[in-house]
Amino acid sequence: MTAVARAFVPGHVTGFFTVDRDDDPTKTGSRGAGVALSEGVTVTVRPAEERETVLNGESAEIEAVERVLDALEATVRVTGVTDLPVGSGFGVSGAMALGAALATNDVLDRRLSTYELATIAHGAEVQAGTGLGDVVAQLHGGVPIRLEPGSPQHNKMDAVPARSRVEFQTFGERSTSEVIGGDTEALTTAGEQALSRLVREPTLSTFVGASREFSREADLLSDRVYEVITEVAEADGEALMGMLGDTVVALGSGLTDAGYDPTVCRIDPTGATLLDPPSDRALPE
Amino acid sequence: MTAVARAFVPGHVTGFFTVDRDDDPTKTGSRGAGVALSEGVTVTVRPAEERETVLNGESAEIEAVERVLDALEATVRVTGVTDLPVGSGFGVSGAMALGAALATNDVLDRRLSTYELATIAHGAEVQAGTGLGDVVAQLHGGVPIRLEPGSPQHNKMDAVPARSRVEFQTFGERSTSEVIGGDTEALTTAGEQALSRLVREPTLSTFVGASREFSREADLLSDRVYEVITEVAEADGEALMGMLGDTVVALGSGLTDAGYDPTVCRIDPTGATLLDPPSDRALPE
Repeated sequence: MTAVARAFVPGHVTGFFTVDRDDDPTKTGSRGAGVALSEGVTVTVRPAEERETVLNGESAEIEAVERVLDALEATVRVTGVTDLPVGSGFGVSGAMALGAALATNDVLDRRLSTYELATIAHGAEVQAGTGLGDVVAQLHGGVPIRLEPGSPQHNKMDAVPARSRVEFQTFGERSTSEVIGGDTEALTTAGEQALSRLVREPTLSTFVGASREFSREADLLSDRVYEVITEVAEADGEALMGMLGDTVVALGSGLTDAGYDPTVCRIDPTGATLLDPPSDRALPE
Repeated sequence: MTAVARAFVPGHVTGFFTVDRDDDPTKTGSRGAGVALSEGVTVTVRPAEERETVLNGESAEIEAVERVLDALEATVRVTGVTDLPVGSGFGVSGAMALGAALATNDVLDRRLSTYELATIAHGAEVQAGTGLGDVVAQLHGGVPIRLEPGSPQHNKMDAVPARSRVEFQTFGERSTSEVIGGDTEALTTAGEQALSRLVREPTLSTFVGASREFSREADLLSDRVYEVITEVAEADGEALMGMLGDTVVALGSGLTDAGYDPTVCRIDPTGATLLDPPSDRALPE
């Protein structure tokens, strides 16, 4: 048996979304679109005496991960390492849940399929209240369009065929559960409008425009983010607000051109994937 | 406007499959499973005075590519470069069709979605009679399981969560259209049995076993391939016959261990994807 397994899960920034609830957590989810990022979370799992989750070297309580380990009846140590900002709308909890599912299945030889594992991670995120669409988008990679909500066994996807440099900068935190736990009717209406706009013309430029309109219509745009997006536009760039966080995301070099010092990455084309096990020396403790 | 666009499409070896016909080519396809390979086809597209398709430096007539260009109303030069054997069941025609669709959409700014483009490529392969399941598998990457047939807008997928070294060696050619054009009832029954076995236990080992059983039951196993698979087994390895070709595929180092000198690659985790445009100097003529 492999004594350790590793998965990489891309970060995911949501441009616009709906909230679609169902009694079944695997059918609950969101429609919308976002960008999977080459910056992500590398998740290492190995059998342990006691369950423990560590994120960037510190012990972490991540309910979605706990629920995944419950479903897989796993006593393991889950170690996540990421350069992404945590709690700022980059899907770090979804990445931890999905990475834990993929790597635990591998190390404990649970023999589940990719979509079964993603369904477990999606349901765990929904039940923890920390995400609705990140896991399926992170499984897919690229610029996924979520046409129908729910886990990969229930949803319907498409994608914008695009590659691009991506820049992002975060100006504060925002709790996902606060936004998606409240009244989401207006938000869902705005999300549906943005989705039908993107389906008519599935390009990056339309994605950015529809996302900007969504953040205004859904009343999620903070003053600071609005200011930065305007500055990027004045520098001939295109930027959107990353849901859910006080984050500005530019496709291309818009933030740099506007004088900011953003993190630079790319659209991740792959989605969540198992990695080769590291050599013992490279293992995070 | 970009003057050139490029896509990479992984090769795909089918382990087992069914033939599912429908009046609508986008609903025609196959169920089954295979492996997407890190060896694939790099497809470059640029506007031209006349349509031309070139594969590995030689002018090529590929009906599926012609049909894709018809659908996109495109007068372009399509250049494919690959180290895969052509006509030996590695999905080179599917890769050319899908790569042409993705890169033509990009270079001519046709504004179609990823799944729309894959649907065009899938329908083109079906109508050309050169493939039923390669395009959707090549779009997905990894070890895709095709639970329901048809284009990405109609089918249902899952996958075996696995990474592995892959070895392959080809001992002859076989025409896809001859096999899928004939009586396919026994083949489809064998494919359904293999599929239900893999769905019960979605692991690489089960995939190899179910594929081997399929090639026997569907009466597609050539003497030479049978001999090589037996030699790999005697060297403690696992190998299957790649459909549709006289090809042996080993996961791990089975062919090497049995004394062969195979091509070595990996499972491709990504699936078909646009690449950055090459610098002019690197462009194939």
